Amino acid sequence: MENFSFQIIKKDRKSSARLGEINTPHGRIHTPAFVSVGTQATVKSLSPDELKDLGAEIILANTYHLLLRPGDKIIKYLGGLHKFMNWNGPIMTDSGGFQVFSLGLALIHGVGKIANIFPEEANFKPPTKNKDKFTKIDNDGVTFKSHLDGRTHRLTPEKSIEIQENLGADIIFAFDECTSPLSSKNYTGLAMKRTHNWATRCLKAKKRKDQALFGIVQGGEYGDLREESAKFINSLPFFGFGIGGSLGKSKKDMHQILEWTVPLLDEKKPRHLLGIGEPEDLFNGIERGIDLFDCVIPTRIARNRTVFTKKGRFSLVKSEFIKDKNPIEKGCQCYACRNFSRAYLNHLFKAEEILAHRLATIHNLYFIMNLMKQIRESIRGNRFLKFKNEFLRRYKKSGI
Amino acid sequence: MENFSFQIIKKDRKSSARLGEINTPHGRIHTPAFVSVGTQATVKSLSPDELKDLGAEIILANTYHLLLRPGDKIIKYLGGLHKFMNWNGPIMTDSGGFQVFSLGLALIHGVGKIANIFPEEANFKPPTKNKDKFTKIDNDGVTFKSHLDGRTHRLTPEKSIEIQENLGADIIFAFDECTSPLSSKNYTGLAMKRTHNWATRCLKAKKRKDQALFGIVQGGEYGDLREESAKFINSLPFFGFGIGGSLGKSKKDMHQILEWTVPLLDEKKPRHLLGIGEPEDLFNGIERGIDLFDCVIPTRIARNRTVFTKKGRFSLVKSEFIKDKNPIEKGCQCYACRNFSRAYLNHLFKAEEILAHRLATIHNLYFIMNLMKQIRESIRGNRFLKFKNEFLRRYKKSGI
Repeated sequence: MENFSFQIIKKDRKSSARLGEINTPHGRIHTPAFVSVGTQATVKSLSPDELKDLGAEIILANTYHLLLRPGDKIIKYLGGLHKFMNWNGPIMTDSGGFQVFSLGLALIHGVGKIANIFPEEANFKPPTKNKDKFTKIDNDGVTFKSHLDGRTHRLTPEKSIEIQENLGADIIFAFDECTSPLSSKNYTGLAMKRTHNWATRCLKAKKRKDQALFGIVQGGEYGDLREESAKFINSLPFFGFGIGGSLGKSKKDMHQILEWTVPLLDEKKPRHLLGIGEPEDLFNGIERGIDLFDCVIPTRIARNRTVFTKKGRFSLVKSEFIKDKNPIEKGCQCYACRNFSRAYLNHLFKAEEILAHRLATIHNLYFIMNLMKQIRESIRGNRFLKFKNEFLRRYKKSGI
Repeated sequence: MENFSFQIIKKDRKSSARLGEINTPHGRIHTPAFVSVGTQATVKSLSPDELKDLGAEIILANTYHLLLRPGDKIIKYLGGLHKFMNWNGPIMTDSGGFQVFSLGLALIHGVGKIANIFPEEANFKPPTKNKDKFTKIDNDGVTFKSHLDGRTHRLTPEKSIEIQENLGADIIFAFDECTSPLSSKNYTGLAMKRTHNWATRCLKAKKRKDQALFGIVQGGEYGDLREESAKFINSLPFFGFGIGGSLGKSKKDMHQILEWTVPLLDEKKPRHLLGIGEPEDLFNGIERGIDLFDCVIPTRIARNRTVFTKKGRFSLVKSEFIKDKNPIEKGCQCYACRNFSRAYLNHLFKAEEILAHRLATIHNLYFIMNLMKQIRESIRGNRFLKFKNEFLRRYKKSGI
């Protein structure tokens, strides 16, 4: 592949954390890295310039959404995703497999990637009455109806790669079947086999030399399946790995799944924990050898009025902020904190002004980017676990 | 008054157009100028930096809205509007009189400032069933119910000035009663007398020395009333003038009203045509001696997917733009046109992404700011009417 490499610069002595660099045709990603989610070819509310300014090095766009609108062929005609959205840095696209899940099993089971965090924070709509009409999975691929206009679409491994080649991201993913934390072991095993078969078909289908393909490890919350999947996917010539699918019923389960999976993956290749990324998850993932994360939470909770601080999250619409002259977080160097008070943000949210979404999004992404930077520095300085403990001692999920 | 002045730099030979400068404690405004509307202490979707970048020199915030939320006393406590919204340039606030109108007569009559442009472009919601419950006007002031929580508020000339002093804008307006294009001559005359009485009360009530007060000429579409009002308001020691209220039943009526009014106003003081500002209106107002305009149209139509170009307006969601690689307007130097295609904007609007609102707003305000700059240059170069004719020959309101 042209212009792609992954180098490990430093390994932590006391954990599996590692400092690295992924080089792509559109630039370098310092790992561990958080990938900002730009589902519809825009990180919601932000301009590409703002993203660069807050330290983002890579973004993720969703194949499923872009297939439906405006269409991958149109984006190809317009010069590809980078040109379309005017983001000149690295981009990754997912395979569409996760959205098949979110329109299928996730709706039937009413769950997300981790059972007990749905529906508050997961990436799904609540179960609908015609939930079983959306998606049909067979060994060759998936047939589903567009959530936009009800038209029927078909995704196969070959089709997913074709679409992702049309979109033109730097890093693309193999088409996989996600299972839910409530899927039986039997079904999870069947879906895993299908994912393995599709993984080989994706590698075969891939034509472009300027994209790196990641394979996805499935197997749900079952140790033997996860190990089987990690070994199989590791045996194929992928550039890197995604760890996908159900991550169990609790964050503890998720940690266990990483401990089963990551040690079986070639340490010379980057590892992406798909769809995860609260501050505590970043630490716990990195400790277990994860290099890449993507998650909608920082941007989604921002639009829902909630911001991250070192002490935890809080809602900006609390009445105590009406007259608060302080920034969201003292000392924070983001554009929102350098220029505006909590009182102003409180007002903007109550008045339903767009600028509220922008400023909270900038703050939250800056917070995460800055946290990742500090984590990288802590690995470089042989003090990752120390920094983790210090940070998490102060950080309360329930807020300040 | 401290640090306030208005200088006329050049007068057009063939029309009443003039080039000038208003100096305020927060900086200079080059006139003729378009004042961007930031109703709730934010120009919808934009950051203050973006506003500066696109050439805005002054913004207008609405007293009525800020009184109701977050409250003028809170804004005062937080250091005033400039600090609250982090806009360090000049600000003006209206008096609240116009909103009294828009919640009262405008709803009853179902009209705007010019009868035939409602409801498409005017600043009002459609008539409601309990329309007559909102507002009660008497000679001392106005009692109305908040559109937010139904609580009763009272505005008088003294109260309007107090609120505007708390908000702390550079330019403030006298409290007036707006009539509708459908008001009788008798009622319009009564409202005008009230406005005159309130004008003197506002002058008396004003305490702060670092704000300039504009008086408002009323009189609806009636020549004798407009003349009476212009003479009376001109006789008082205001820093400048607003031309407010009903501007008739057509744009022709509006021009007639300006021709009655403007010649009676001291030419050494600035004149603001309130709530008006489509491209053709700017030319026609400036030709008749107007120095300042404010209008929500550029920002509102932007959020409604419509953009200005030299050839006219058009909607970005037309299907012909799905694959259009061109910017909104070739040669335009705004951030949107320098970086994004019509196809991308078409996608963002269809996908209901916030960035669509931002980019279209930036383009439209830049378009208007740039037009005003060109108009100023044309006055300086003794070719204002020539430029007006050239521009309007190409510009079709119906779009390209």
